[in-house]
Amino acid sequence: MRILIAGAHGAVGRAAAAELGKRHTIVTLGRSKGDFTADLMKPDSVSAMFAKAGQFDAIVSCTGHTYFGPLATMTAAQFMTGVNDKLMGQINLVLEGLKHIADGGSFTLTSGILDRDPVRQGVNAAAVNGAIDAFVFAAAIDLPRGLRINAVSPGLLEESAKKYEGFFPGHHPVSSARVGLAYAKSVEGGLTGKVITAD
Amino acid sequence: MRILIAGAHGAVGRAAAAELGKRHTIVTLGRSKGDFTADLMKPDSVSAMFAKAGQFDAIVSCTGHTYFGPLATMTAAQFMTGVNDKLMGQINLVLEGLKHIADGGSFTLTSGILDRDPVRQGVNAAAVNGAIDAFVFAAAIDLPRGLRINAVSPGLLEESAKKYEGFFPGHHPVSSARVGLAYAKSVEGGLTGKVITAD
Repeated sequence: MRILIAGAHGAVGRAAAAELGKRHTIVTLGRSKGDFTADLMKPDSVSAMFAKAGQFDAIVSCTGHTYFGPLATMTAAQFMTGVNDKLMGQINLVLEGLKHIADGGSFTLTSGILDRDPVRQGVNAAAVNGAIDAFVFAAAIDLPRGLRINAVSPGLLEESAKKYEGFFPGHHPVSSARVGLAYAKSVEGGLTGKVITAD
Repeated sequence: MRILIAGAHGAVGRAAAAELGKRHTIVTLGRSKGDFTADLMKPDSVSAMFAKAGQFDAIVSCTGHTYFGPLATMTAAQFMTGVNDKLMGQINLVLEGLKHIADGGSFTLTSGILDRDPVRQGVNAAAVNGAIDAFVFAAAIDLPRGLRINAVSPGLLEESAKKYEGFFPGHHPVSSARVGLAYAKSVEGGLTGKVITAD
C-alpha cells in the first residue's frame, strides 16, 4: 500500500511509520518537513498538497496540539487551539483526502486517552478526542466506495512520559511498538467506525 | 434555585424549562428573544449578558445548530457550523459562566444521540456531541468550588420527528416530558461528569 502519514515526525507518527513502514510505502507529511508539507488547518493547503502527492491507499493522521491548563481560567481562544489544530486539522485531511483515496482505502485518525480517562487541566484534549472518536463512529456509515475510517486512541507514550510528568498521575505509559500496532490494525485490518485503544 | 436556560425557546429548551420551572426561577436566554439575549459564539457577548443577568445557581444550555449532509461532499466551512455554534457556543457559556455561578452550582450542556447511535449525514452532529460529552467528563474533575457539570443527550424529540423525517430511520422518538426530567436529574441531583441520556 501507498500510505500517507501526517505528523510522521512526532512521537505517535514515528510509532505508526515504524510499524507500517515494514510492509508498505510510507509518504510523510509534516508542518515544515517530510516528503510533503501542508498546514492542515487550511483546507486550501491540504488540497494543494494532495494535488502534488497524488492518490493513497491509506491516509493516517497523527497530528494535533491541544491546550493544557485549568478550566477555571481557560479562555475561548485557548480552547480553540485544540479545536483548530487537532480536530479541524484531521477533519480537513479527511474531507480533502476523500478525493485522493483509492476505493476500499482507509483513514486512521488519532484521538487519545483523555476522553476515556481524564486528567486535570485536560478538558481541551478530552473534548477534541471525544469529537474525533464520535466522528469516525458516524463517518463509517456515511463513507462511499468501501472506504473505512477508525481512530487510534493512544495512552501516554513512554517516550513522552518525562515531558508530561505530573499531568498524568497513575497513567501507565505505553510503548511506541504497542501504539504502532494499533495503526496496523486500522490500516491492514477490516475494522471501520472503531476507536482502537493502545494503552 | 435561579436557573439560566440558554436556548429556552427551542424544542429541547422548552422541555427543560417546563420541568425545571415547576420548582425554580427560570431566566431565559436566546439569540434574539428571552429575558436576556446573547450570541453564544462570541465570548464578549456572553460576558456582557452575564454582567447584566447576574449570578445563577444553575446554568443550562439547550442550544446549537449542526450541519446535516453527506460526508463525501462536506466542506470544512460546513463542518465548522456545528463546531462554532453547538460546541463553542456551549463552551463559551461555561467559560464565562464560571465567573457567575454560585458555589456548588451546576452546568448542564446538551449533546444528543448521534454520537451513540449515528445516522447517515450526521457526522457533524456526532462529532460535536462527542466533544460535549467528553468535555463534561473531563471538566467534572477540574471544576472549583463544588461545581458540577453534566450533559443531557436526548434522542429525537417527538415534536421534531416530522421535521427530521427520513433522517433517523428506526429511531424511537422521545417525549418532551422525558427530556425535561433529564435536565432535572442533572440540576437537582448530585451527578457530575455524566452524560444523562433521554431516549
